[in-house]
Amino acid sequence: MDIERAKLKYDRLSKDEAALLIIDHQSGLFQLVHDHVPDVFDRNVLALADTAKLFKLPTVVTTSKEDGPNGPLMPEVRARLPKVQVIRREGEINAWDSPEFVKAVKKTGRKQLIVAGITTDVCVAFVVLSALEAGYDVRVVTDASGSLCVGSAGGAIARMAMAGAQPMSWFAVASELMRDWRNDESGFTKLMVEHVPNYKHLIAAYEAKEA
Amino acid sequence: MDIERAKLKYDRLSKDEAALLIIDHQSGLFQLVHDHVPDVFDRNVLALADTAKLFKLPTVVTTSKEDGPNGPLMPEVRARLPKVQVIRREGEINAWDSPEFVKAVKKTGRKQLIVAGITTDVCVAFVVLSALEAGYDVRVVTDASGSLCVGSAGGAIARMAMAGAQPMSWFAVASELMRDWRNDESGFTKLMVEHVPNYKHLIAAYEAKEA
Amino acid sequence: MDIERAKLKYDRLSKDEAALLIIDHQSGLFQLVHDHVPDVFDRNVLALADTAKLFKLPTVVTTSKEDGPNGPLMPEVRARLPKVQVIRREGEINAWDSPEFVKAVKKTGRKQLIVAGITTDVCVAFVVLSALEAGYDVRVVTDASGSLCVGSAGGAIARMAMAGAQPMSWFAVASELMRDWRNDESGFTKLMVEHVPNYKHLIAAYEAKEA
Amino acid sequence: MDIERAKLKYDRLSKDEAALLIIDHQSGLFQLVHDHVPDVFDRNVLALADTAKLFKLPTVVTTSKEDGPNGPLMPEVRARLPKVQVIRREGEINAWDSPEFVKAVKKTGRKQLIVAGITTDVCVAFVVLSALEAGYDVRVVTDASGSLCVGSAGGAIARMAMAGAQPMSWFAVASELMRDWRNDESGFTKLMVEHVPNYKHLIAAYEAKEA
Amino acid sequence: MDIERAKLKYDRLSKDEAALLIIDHQSGLFQLVHDHVPDVFDRNVLALADTAKLFKLPTVVTTSKEDGPNGPLMPEVRARLPKVQVIRREGEINAWDSPEFVKAVKKTGRKQLIVAGITTDVCVAFVVLSALEAGYDVRVVTDASGSLCVGSAGGAIARMAMAGAQPMSWFAVASELMRDWRNDESGFTKLMVEHVPNYKHLIAAYEAKEA
Amino acid sequence: MDIERAKLKYDRLSKDEAALLIIDHQSGLFQLVHDHVPDVFDRNVLALADTAKLFKLPTVVTTSKEDGPNGPLMPEVRARLPKVQVIRREGEINAWDSPEFVKAVKKTGRKQLIVAGITTDVCVAFVVLSALEAGYDVRVVTDASGSLCVGSAGGAIARMAMAGAQPMSWFAVASELMRDWRNDESGFTKLMVEHVPNYKHLIAAYEAKEA
Amino acid sequence: MDIERAKLKYDRLSKDEAALLIIDHQSGLFQLVHDHVPDVFDRNVLALADTAKLFKLPTVVTTSKEDGPNGPLMPEVRARLPKVQVIRREGEINAWDSPEFVKAVKKTGRKQLIVAGITTDVCVAFVVLSALEAGYDVRVVTDASGSLCVGSAGGAIARMAMAGAQPMSWFAVASELMRDWRNDESGFTKLMVEHVPNYKHLIAAYEAKEA
Amino acid sequence: MDIERAKLKYDRLSKDEAALLIIDHQSGLFQLVHDHVPDVFDRNVLALADTAKLFKLPTVVTTSKEDGPNGPLMPEVRARLPKVQVIRREGEINAWDSPEFVKAVKKTGRKQLIVAGITTDVCVAFVVLSALEAGYDVRVVTDASGSLCVGSAGGAIARMAMAGAQPMSWFAVASELMRDWRNDESGFTKLMVEHVPNYKHLIAAYEAKEA
Repeated sequence: MDIERAKLKYDRLSKDEAALLIIDHQSGLFQLVHDHVPDVFDRNVLALADTAKLFKLPTVVTTSKEDGPNGPLMPEVRARLPKVQVIRREGEINAWDSPEFVKAVKKTGRKQLIVAGITTDVCVAFVVLSALEAGYDVRVVTDASGSLCVGSAGGAIARMAMAGAQPMSWFAVASELMRDWRNDESGFTKLMVEHVPNYKHLIAAYEAKEA
Repeated sequence: MDIERAKLKYDRLSKDEAALLIIDHQSGLFQLVHDHVPDVFDRNVLALADTAKLFKLPTVVTTSKEDGPNGPLMPEVRARLPKVQVIRREGEINAWDSPEFVKAVKKTGRKQLIVAGITTDVCVAFVVLSALEAGYDVRVVTDASGSLCVGSAGGAIARMAMAGAQPMSWFAVASELMRDWRNDESGFTKLMVEHVPNYKHLIAAYEAKEA
Repeated sequence: MDIERAKLKYDRLSKDEAALLIIDHQSGLFQLVHDHVPDVFDRNVLALADTAKLFKLPTVVTTSKEDGPNGPLMPEVRARLPKVQVIRREGEINAWDSPEFVKAVKKTGRKQLIVAGITTDVCVAFVVLSALEAGYDVRVVTDASGSLCVGSAGGAIARMAMAGAQPMSWFAVASELMRDWRNDESGFTKLMVEHVPNYKHLIAAYEAKEA
Repeated sequence: MDIERAKLKYDRLSKDEAALLIIDHQSGLFQLVHDHVPDVFDRNVLALADTAKLFKLPTVVTTSKEDGPNGPLMPEVRARLPKVQVIRREGEINAWDSPEFVKAVKKTGRKQLIVAGITTDVCVAFVVLSALEAGYDVRVVTDASGSLCVGSAGGAIARMAMAGAQPMSWFAVASELMRDWRNDESGFTKLMVEHVPNYKHLIAAYEAKEA
Repeated sequence: MDIERAKLKYDRLSKDEAALLIIDHQSGLFQLVHDHVPDVFDRNVLALADTAKLFKLPTVVTTSKEDGPNGPLMPEVRARLPKVQVIRREGEINAWDSPEFVKAVKKTGRKQLIVAGITTDVCVAFVVLSALEAGYDVRVVTDASGSLCVGSAGGAIARMAMAGAQPMSWFAVASELMRDWRNDESGFTKLMVEHVPNYKHLIAAYEAKEA
Repeated sequence: MDIERAKLKYDRLSKDEAALLIIDHQSGLFQLVHDHVPDVFDRNVLALADTAKLFKLPTVVTTSKEDGPNGPLMPEVRARLPKVQVIRREGEINAWDSPEFVKAVKKTGRKQLIVAGITTDVCVAFVVLSALEAGYDVRVVTDASGSLCVGSAGGAIARMAMAGAQPMSWFAVASELMRDWRNDESGFTKLMVEHVPNYKHLIAAYEAKEA
Repeated sequence: MDIERAKLKYDRLSKDEAALLIIDHQSGLFQLVHDHVPDVFDRNVLALADTAKLFKLPTVVTTSKEDGPNGPLMPEVRARLPKVQVIRREGEINAWDSPEFVKAVKKTGRKQLIVAGITTDVCVAFVVLSALEAGYDVRVVTDASGSLCVGSAGGAIARMAMAGAQPMSWFAVASELMRDWRNDESGFTKLMVEHVPNYKHLIAAYEAKEA
Repeated sequence: MDIERAKLKYDRLSKDEAALLIIDHQSGLFQLVHDHVPDVFDRNVLALADTAKLFKLPTVVTTSKEDGPNGPLMPEVRARLPKVQVIRREGEINAWDSPEFVKAVKKTGRKQLIVAGITTDVCVAFVVLSALEAGYDVRVVTDASGSLCVGSAGGAIARMAMAGAQPMSWFAVASELMRDWRNDESGFTKLMVEHVPNYKHLIAAYEAKEA
């Protein structure tokens, strides 16, 4: 909670100042997530990856012990971000303990960090708290982050918010980056059609009428 | 509820005896559905359409007043079933009141009818009850049928079950039709990967290990 | 549950065969209802009264000890059915114990009874069970009937269904009576606009486009 | 589910034909109940005991291994039914396996049995199924019966209903026994004031106005 | 969160200092709202519009791409505020990016802004954060603002609160503006009768007694 | 939120420093409460009144328009606090606007105010915010305060907490006042037996063993 | 639903007539289960296996494509039933399609089949329906069977019940088999201590007192 | 909420700086807990005790009136921490009022206190607030602390957080202490296998493949 800053300035996410951090969205760890409906969680993660792609956000991806039961990076995340180097941690629970990871974050040159991962109360919270300590402006994407249960996620979001991170949905992240539909109407519409079913159907009905 | 038949025979769905009825899955009417999470409902409807495609089930599609606010057939359903003729009802709420619809159902030559649509308590229930009266073996796909609220759906499912229809999930429909993975392992796996996120990730982790 | 009948015939509600029974929808008793969101329950009761009005259904209204804490008939129900005589019971919990009530039901000459009231497990269930015993075809409108809690309502609906009553929503009742939009498109549209907010907005958006 | 009987006769509970069976409402076992809010469950059990008292229903009370961790009969049940003999079972899980219990039930001379207890899926269900087998007309008071979780209770209620028992709330039991407020207005009002808080406040507001 | 101010002064909403901002309550966007029961959300928005009317609050209404799938301003909002000019944004997601909107807000001359709209995490949150930055005292009407899901709304409300906005219900807004029933008893009673069903029935029962 | 004070001192409630404010717990207004199970809310209010009685806390009771539909003070609250003068407000929504009320609060000479009432977002929140402004240490008893819905209560509790009030349960209030069971073991035990059913049964089982 | 049989006889589970069927409780498939809290589901499956062990029930275990992503039989189930042969199906979704499985069931010589598995709507329902067709008395253990979501499980349980299977909890299964604590007090107590936490603590408190 | 500190430093839990406080996890008091599923709560408490054991954290255990109905320390907690002295409070509700308890805390020489107990709003909150006042860095383990209902726990967590305590899950506590899997891979894996069922099955499936 940053009361003073709020009074002075509403620091909006900007496609020129923000980077995305993808933490441990792995196919094994996906099975641990029980605070979201699986279909929705899976889609939210992809929506966030598509957002990064649309805005060409520098992205840092990390995984934890990928060769073991935690499993590989979610293949559809991989497919959306093919050129991004994945930082494979062999043991560090907090990715910020990996010098390679911190180096990659710094290399983005961005001060606004958008963070999502599995689990919200462990791998996400630890990175968020470390990034805040390091002076970053941090947003935690709560609906693209998963946890063992609703209670664990709720407590962790409160903990991060108390330390200064802002909770946001992937849809708020995308909209704050977009600012104006006219910047890329087709790109933003595509994002919504693919990830907001009610909006997809609004458009389908509208276009049927149009025709 | 058909106690006597159950004692005699478990009539499994068969790809040679079953047909699918898609009732009013329209982009306008989609907005009325509040008894499922929208992402999940949207995906379940597509999973059912993919099931029909995989098993080449004869399919009858109908819409209600498509030119008005009810909107067009969901485009992704349309895309999966491009050759199916859509029976456009101009006013009949119960599709069974449309001679054209009944004729199309009869033309499939099938006695097992798999029914889904919007809304569960109106357009689905009325077709189901009429089909039961006409002597069909009817299955209602509850997770691919949507309603204004959970209560409306629950009462309608009870009403249909009491009259002899069997409630099933799309996943049970697909599995009962498949019978044995070896009949089409790649086809069935694809269906599950695309529509059961936890299964998709089981496979991704398994294959990563394999590699 | 009437298995045999279901096999033979789907007895649809018909505006020429059905009557509506309104049981104890009183302003005092309204306060007891905790199995529905109050806004929704209030609106569902009015939707049902509007349905009766639209189809000119013979309607029998009864109240229980109206001069005491149970309070008067809900004023908006009264306003929708101004000519209907209200049968005021001075003590009978089951309205079927009131000869005046039974006489009024018989006088409608209808065999299909649509029943709603407060509470589902007492005043509604008792009338429903008595009417079934008397040979009527009975539908209980579960979303226009209220109870002290969800559990009480659920058990009572099961009890009535087991005895042969069919649970329906007000929307299913109206749709089954209507049969075809073309019978009275403006009347049915008005009913939906006033009582199904998502449908109201579908139409508003559609008409805005039209204009 | 007793379809045939329902067609012939609605067997109402009658104070001259019904008896109450209280099964294992013990202070230790109370701690196992997690399918109701504790305050509500506790009050519902007492409401049922008060109902028995109001209508002078013959009552059979039984406990299971009262000297061990299961604990004594709930003291407030004991206080409401001071003269009733408690049949202490030393091991039988199904009270119907205790000849002394069955004898006590027979001694009531009643054919309608109102059953409640802990837990719904074990001690209640077993007695209910045995009583049905013995030819009794059985009502299970679902809100005065408790279970380890909502799922266990729900399955057990379905099992009992399928075998012919009717699920009822304590409020429906009391109302069906009462039939007409004029039979004992003060007695019935007292019951409602003590156990239905919203009704208590309806009366308080009404009487304040009166004054 | 404004700790210091709270210690010094409880800045109540005042009909002479407050203005209402209605953000994107459009018939298309209404369909996206899944964090409230539709009947309740629809009614809450109208209750807020009626509140503005009752207190003659200066009101600024804006819509987003009204000619497309987002649809027109909700007709009943339009009907309640017929003279208010609607600022139609052609692309700006944050209305504060529209100079015309900011000008309209400034023109009200008010320092207390009451904000509601669709969706809570995007169009509402962005305006709220911008208004706080601009020095306004901001209240977000959470039950008249809608979002894709409960989680998105919850995170956004926390984000706004952390920045200094106060979450309020429409009922709290109306009551804080009213201050004393005697200022306009009939006006305030009418507001409650139309939008708080339990209160409507309290009055109906009271007046029946009176009569 | 009072960070600095928390660092310096944990101001416990003390029976010599605290007073209780009972705001609009009236039999009519009770009917508006839909964010708690009625049995539980009713009992929590009485538990709080019993707590005041046990610790002989100075208590200020106020009602709003008691002669109209809001109804009389809850009779069981009245019975527990027979000597307390009730301050009847004829129109002020915020009791703090009544000089008589503020005078009564001041007269208690206490600086710790324990506040509960109906509704949480209106009559409770307004008093709490005014009392904080006046420099009091304020605790809001969330489970003895009721609101139209869970959302309204949640937002109001956040609003009050942000301004410096501490949310507490009645059980926490009683325990913080008690400090040590040995101060009045029988008094505190009685409070728990009467208002915490699981504790009542722990004791019953314990004492049965003892005997 | 077996109305006639219920009237004639309550067929209790008997340790001399019952067998347990464990269907696809595999470590991969465990990840698909989202209709139970994972801790509870895991424990319920083990409780059921312990029940089989306690009563020395003949048990048939089958797995589906164990070498692929479905994974091995849950190790703790394996450990509890070390001598039981596991029938590994290479493709049959319905285990009843495996002659080896049916042969194993027949070899038990039992007529009462207790069935649990993953998922409730597919592998469990199919076996249950086939077993009913083959004339067995079938019980489905709903809390030791898992599904993709609550809706899928609910529909499947209704489908099985309608065909004649009885839904039971593992606790009801164990208690019906036990009949009398005195048959094996220490065995049954151990089962409850290990799988019913509230009972474990009842005993711990009781024994502490004893000591 | 410690805004300033968060900006400067993320004080991670360290096995060399942290101690665990176990407050009133007694077999009697366990029965009061209704804000968690019993199986899950029981397991979370043991998971926390195992965490203390794994990291050899100095641990202070206290109980309240152990000889009465509150019952003995949970036996499995006792078994995991056999050498820890239990501080038996004879009346103090807030353990911090026991000089012996405070002395034991001081003796640990640790500044980071991890606190869990029964109930969250009373015995836990009071200790947490006192420890904050005494200058400790306090973490409250919300999923290993239990309360009478969800509302009581939620308000108490907010109260503690507002005063500066950080809410954490037991899993976050263990992970923050562990820092790197390589510090003790087998120890941490064992902890997860025993207390996170989905992780246990990830490993089982992985190892089966391995084999």
